[in-house]
Amino acid sequence: MAFGWIDEQASARRRAGLVRTLRPRPADSPLLDLASNDYLGLAHHPEIIEGAAGAARTWGGGATGSRLVTGTTELHGELERELAAFCGFEAALVFSSGYAANLAAVTALAPHGSLVVSDAGNHASLIDGCRLARGTTQVVGHADPDAVRKALGAAEGPAIAVSDTVFSVDGDAAPLTGLAAACRAHGAGLVVDDAHGLGVLGDGGRGAPWAAGLAGAPDVVVTVTLSKSLGSQGGAVLGPAKVIDHLVNAARTFIFDTGLAPAATGAALAALRLLRREPERAARAREVARALHTRLTASGHEAVRPDAAVVSVRAPSPDQAVRWAADCRAAGLAVGCFRPPSVPDGVSRLRLTARADLTEAQIDRAVGIIGDTRP
Amino acid sequence: MAFGWIDEQASARRRAGLVRTLRPRPADSPLLDLASNDYLGLAHHPEIIEGAAGAARTWGGGATGSRLVTGTTELHGELERELAAFCGFEAALVFSSGYAANLAAVTALAPHGSLVVSDAGNHASLIDGCRLARGTTQVVGHADPDAVRKALGAAEGPAIAVSDTVFSVDGDAAPLTGLAAACRAHGAGLVVDDAHGLGVLGDGGRGAPWAAGLAGAPDVVVTVTLSKSLGSQGGAVLGPAKVIDHLVNAARTFIFDTGLAPAATGAALAALRLLRREPERAARAREVARALHTRLTASGHEAVRPDAAVVSVRAPSPDQAVRWAADCRAAGLAVGCFRPPSVPDGVSRLRLTARADLTEAQIDRAVGIIGDTRP
Ligand SMILES: Cc1ncc(COP(=O)(O)O)c(C=O)c1O
Ligand SMILES: Cc1ncc(COP(=O)(O)O)c(C=O)c1O
Repeated sequence: MAFGWIDEQASARRRAGLVRTLRPRPADSPLLDLASNDYLGLAHHPEIIEGAAGAARTWGGGATGSRLVTGTTELHGELERELAAFCGFEAALVFSSGYAANLAAVTALAPHGSLVVSDAGNHASLIDGCRLARGTTQVVGHADPDAVRKALGAAEGPAIAVSDTVFSVDGDAAPLTGLAAACRAHGAGLVVDDAHGLGVLGDGGRGAPWAAGLAGAPDVVVTVTLSKSLGSQGGAVLGPAKVIDHLVNAARTFIFDTGLAPAATGAALAALRLLRREPERAARAREVARALHTRLTASGHEAVRPDAAVVSVRAPSPDQAVRWAADCRAAGLAVGCFRPPSVPDGVSRLRLTARADLTEAQIDRAVGIIGDTRP
Repeated sequence: MAFGWIDEQASARRRAGLVRTLRPRPADSPLLDLASNDYLGLAHHPEIIEGAAGAARTWGGGATGSRLVTGTTELHGELERELAAFCGFEAALVFSSGYAANLAAVTALAPHGSLVVSDAGNHASLIDGCRLARGTTQVVGHADPDAVRKALGAAEGPAIAVSDTVFSVDGDAAPLTGLAAACRAHGAGLVVDDAHGLGVLGDGGRGAPWAAGLAGAPDVVVTVTLSKSLGSQGGAVLGPAKVIDHLVNAARTFIFDTGLAPAATGAALAALRLLRREPERAARAREVARALHTRLTASGHEAVRPDAAVVSVRAPSPDQAVRWAADCRAAGLAVGCFRPPSVPDGVSRLRLTARADLTEAQIDRAVGIIGDTRP
């Protein structure tokens, strides 16, 4: 029978206690949210909502086609110009998701005969980009510029190094300066995914590459998502204009995908404008993360020092991680729970996200609940 | 220098006359649109726009996380239930794009040791799914159930056949009945992409699988997009509940991607409800396509008989196709222009799309302009 093998996999998952199910949330969830990636608290901001609604009214419900046919509106152009300017790059290209932006950047910049050096902790979308690329991928140890340098030294054709700027599981930052130096020593390009850096790191949230002095460099390409700090959906690639032109001509997830919906484009644009007006939101997200970390470690939890807005807390086992997260939820707190196979190292954790709009009282409450429910 | 090789590729593209550039459209474009995939004319319908705006107001600008963390709202659940019921399947799962839905369906249903038999004319997203899948892919000739049967006969482990239901370039339909028979003869699953069938084919737009009597079959999985007939953005996979549960647990573009934005979810839901109320829109889209084809062939154009709402007209060369499309545009008509490398057979064409809301006068005008500008 077709799909019979699925039953065996499902049983194995059940036996291992690794079944994932969807839990739809209501519009008025009473939970305190430390699980979303809405780092700046903008997803529910009236200006962002009006950005979405107004764009739908003016431009319609969908983009109606590939960006190369009918799917590019002047609104997409506006977002691309303002995003590029904000992050300090020459040009930008918007995609339907951050996932699609990563597939595009890696595949289009790793042609046949090239080398891709990829950090072992990279996000699934970068890994899928490596798998789809025509070039050869070499995976190197996590956050190890020397390993990148060594791998690039063996390259004969074009080469790139690929890394998250802030790793989504533990929230630790990549050694961007070291990576850029390793790339430059070998004439390689550096492609970094700033999904968790944009809006949080760098001057006023301009991102990790800006903070590292790499913004606008001719050999640096950055991908971002519009779905985290900007409270919307979509992704973008930022870089030299010639790289962006190349993506327009070569990236399959650009050419063969419908353009980002006007509402998502408008919401992201509204969020970007708000962030320019209220740059202190970025610093506040980092401050909340540090406060969470300080208080959690003070009460004996094993948490990674946050470089951005993600705070990762170790759990003793997958089972206990799941129970811990469930107990938090029962006590009114939503936290993320990462466990195999979504964690590279097999270590299960609670994943907490700081939001710029969390109050001191909410931080207290969150830390209290996490402590009370500790396995 | 990093990215130096891009310059050579760019020059080669310029020399070949194959440079693609973006042409942002204004909100009030005066062009008659025969280029978008808005088959039912819903992208600008007030109910769809209000579906987007209302959802943004209630649910925020973005889904704020993976569907498995904070990204599933009750609105996603509603859309999934209504979409599954409409198309006649047990369950549905919504993705951020049709592209992501295709990557998910193919990769999750083609495990290590399996065989994927893929039509040579399949969409880029299905092809990328095959490339990412752990199974082995065998590409077979276009629309050839016998070739599929033969390929499946050699499979030792689990196997699927993968096909568009309506091919996006020429608008021809896949031989679904023959494909299903070939799969059943070998206990293989059938995975079909109904991106251009949903809303156009089948009773009231229930899609090509419904029209072929395959809706709800335990060995059939369907992918759809929300970005064409439903005038929004996003994609979905429809199939047996156990397949959908498997995708929730195994599909990387589901697990590691932010959920579809509320506005896009709401717009698609509004479009689906409108289509249920006004099922005649589907038949009208097909009627417009047939009218376009009849009049174009009557005036000597070489056009493929449309099985759905896409009408493909041959052009003598890539250059002339581009000029023809540009001349149409100068005369007030937007048409698609497909040329290498976006066409599998190297033949350039104008790609016209029928919309249910085109008037007879607009059809006359379109046919007139295409004839007047013919190279
Ligand atoms: C590091 C990283 N890159 C890319 C993505 C994908 O972005 P999106 O969800 O906007 O598609 C995510 C999360 O979803 C991520 O955490
Ligand atoms: C046949 C087919 N499948 C899938 C897709 C991808 O869907 P989406 O654009 O909604 O991501 C498209 C077009 O874009 C398509 O034509």
